[in-house]
Amino acid sequence: MKINSNFLNLKDSYLFATVGRKTTAYKTAHPEKKVIRLSIGDVTRPLAPVVIDAMHRAVDDMSRKETFKGYGPDQYCYGYNVLIDSIKDSYSRKGVSLDSAEVFISDGAKSDLGNILDLFAIDNTVLVPDPVYPVYVDTNVMAGRKILYADANLANGFLPMPDFSVDADIVYLCSPNNPTGAAYSKEQLKEWVRYACEKDAVLLYDAAYEYFITDPALARSVYQIEGAKECAIEFCSYSKTAGFTGVRCGYTIVPKELVREGTSLNTLWARRQSTKFNGVSYITQMGAAAVFTAEGEKQISENLGYYRENAKIIADCLDELGIFYTGGKNSPYIWMKCPNGMDSWEFFDYLLENANVVGTPGSGFGKNGEGFFRLTAFGTKEDTKEACSRIRALLQK
Amino acid sequence: MKINSNFLNLKDSYLFATVGRKTTAYKTAHPEKKVIRLSIGDVTRPLAPVVIDAMHRAVDDMSRKETFKGYGPDQYCYGYNVLIDSIKDSYSRKGVSLDSAEVFISDGAKSDLGNILDLFAIDNTVLVPDPVYPVYVDTNVMAGRKILYADANLANGFLPMPDFSVDADIVYLCSPNNPTGAAYSKEQLKEWVRYACEKDAVLLYDAAYEYFITDPALARSVYQIEGAKECAIEFCSYSKTAGFTGVRCGYTIVPKELVREGTSLNTLWARRQSTKFNGVSYITQMGAAAVFTAEGEKQISENLGYYRENAKIIADCLDELGIFYTGGKNSPYIWMKCPNGMDSWEFFDYLLENANVVGTPGSGFGKNGEGFFRLTAFGTKEDTKEACSRIRALLQK
Repeated sequence: MKINSNFLNLKDSYLFATVGRKTTAYKTAHPEKKVIRLSIGDVTRPLAPVVIDAMHRAVDDMSRKETFKGYGPDQYCYGYNVLIDSIKDSYSRKGVSLDSAEVFISDGAKSDLGNILDLFAIDNTVLVPDPVYPVYVDTNVMAGRKILYADANLANGFLPMPDFSVDADIVYLCSPNNPTGAAYSKEQLKEWVRYACEKDAVLLYDAAYEYFITDPALARSVYQIEGAKECAIEFCSYSKTAGFTGVRCGYTIVPKELVREGTSLNTLWARRQSTKFNGVSYITQMGAAAVFTAEGEKQISENLGYYRENAKIIADCLDELGIFYTGGKNSPYIWMKCPNGMDSWEFFDYLLENANVVGTPGSGFGKNGEGFFRLTAFGTKEDTKEACSRIRALLQK
Repeated sequence: MKINSNFLNLKDSYLFATVGRKTTAYKTAHPEKKVIRLSIGDVTRPLAPVVIDAMHRAVDDMSRKETFKGYGPDQYCYGYNVLIDSIKDSYSRKGVSLDSAEVFISDGAKSDLGNILDLFAIDNTVLVPDPVYPVYVDTNVMAGRKILYADANLANGFLPMPDFSVDADIVYLCSPNNPTGAAYSKEQLKEWVRYACEKDAVLLYDAAYEYFITDPALARSVYQIEGAKECAIEFCSYSKTAGFTGVRCGYTIVPKELVREGTSLNTLWARRQSTKFNGVSYITQMGAAAVFTAEGEKQISENLGYYRENAKIIADCLDELGIFYTGGKNSPYIWMKCPNGMDSWEFFDYLLENANVVGTPGSGFGKNGEGFFRLTAFGTKEDTKEACSRIRALLQK
């Protein structure tokens, strides 16, 4: 038996492990210090009451013969109509009309972002922004595809635009971005849609953070751009929208208009999912279906508002200090330039030792991340305020 | 962008769609008849009370800041210790000792059976029994691997044994089998382990139905066979064990001893899962952890006993009629020879029209299924009894 030798080309990521190790070492050496983590990439607020109620009811359904549910419905790859309809409603509020067969329920955007690659030939060329969420790169390394990078940097505000001299077949976009928090305007996305159409490429559009957008000039869905249904697959998640990181539910849109080499990608994905997947828990689906109800949207926006306020606290602090950053406004991430010419790990140590604040070194997300640093809005308000007053005190000197 | 053209080699399966269409047509034409479906592949009994209680508690945990859970633990690919420990306990009762890092929690055996193929080079040769659960074939067609078949037939009691003149790299075994219900003895499995070790092959052992086994001569886990840890991956599921088809939870064992080309498959799978998967719902995991407790095992065996009794009712009926079958004793499936030389679809029509009973034509599972027919034990006791008395009346003539 021969193993898939592409796995041997994967680079080990020591980023979060090293952050954890250094933090623990500091805390052990200085037990009297209160270390604050602005490095958290996970949500911390509990689920909304409507979601909790819906899940309790669904658990009760599973306890009675009359209401028990086995495998999910075949028709839409195991997605329940009530959930699919609520997602379609959420899209229609963004001005996007979808067919039920275009909405695929999944156990999260990460699974689908990896599994979608089953549909594409190995000899396609992939274009990935740098810095980037490491999963885009690793999943393609595993498959053995050629990877090109689009530089995201100070010059383009960490929002790279298409270079028509580069031929790519599969293009990843993440907006609002992880790790930079930068978000594309509708005008900018038009260019990417034009690129994809011209190159016969497919855009893999990661919209996991779209619910953090409040600025109407920014795109909440790639399908707000004309022509996107012919060239883009969109990946969405309840993880950050509704605090579902531990519940596991997402949805992926594969438009019927998306056809390559005469083959519908919608049909291919339905075949992939019905063969290698068996759907999402009924209980999870009923919880997710409550999210986009009127009451659900009201409740999740309280949590989103909490995180947004944290982001603003951090952004205001950096504004005061005159430090460049992206994100913070339509994103839970703040991507700051390290002060005084420090590199990412230098600043990590400096901040940990002098302000007892932990962030994530930008160099861990790609070469263009060097000299930058990621802070997140997922902590408590008290901790975020306290961390910012320490950062202010330290860097104002 | 080039699609993965292997998808174009997939055969459409019309088996269950045609069964459904014919059944509906008959019912429409004869609204006065009570049609009984012994074709159900899904469970119908509600979840055990201990599982329901654990899931309600877990939902409550998600409602409070203090007990809220985000992403699952990193250490074991997002699996909670309490669940992993309960699975290890269940294995130790079968005489198999496992390390926590060998137990991977998934959203079901179907997902893992498909996704595990990421670890293997495309130019491996696959050996699949015929007849077979279609997923083994389709997932390998999607990847473009060469597929060989091991004939399961009357001569070998639908339990093919290894042919050492055939060189295969990846071998699928499903025991108790879907669709035939036949289950390997420990003695027979020893031969397959010997084959895999000699050929440097990997056994993909689908144990989804192992909780139906009561005969101690039959293997409950491939790891009950010496040497299996060096050559086998085992796929398990709560779907049929505990009625989790709509809850989605399984577990896959990748032993640390399983090394090919100097590389640990355990390490490769951990890397695959941490890159393309984000774990199973906390609520689901807490429910699953209740299954293998003392009270849980007692409660699920009531449900398993119910299905086993249905299987016995069908088996007794076929015994009386002198019809050959496999399964029925350590399996929820009964695989019967069609009487009077009928082919699978002929018998389907004959049974539907004359006894108003629906089963599944064996030819839908592969060429060796022609002339055979699958009945399942997942209906109600009343329906199963009624169906059998009709079958008896029809075939005794």
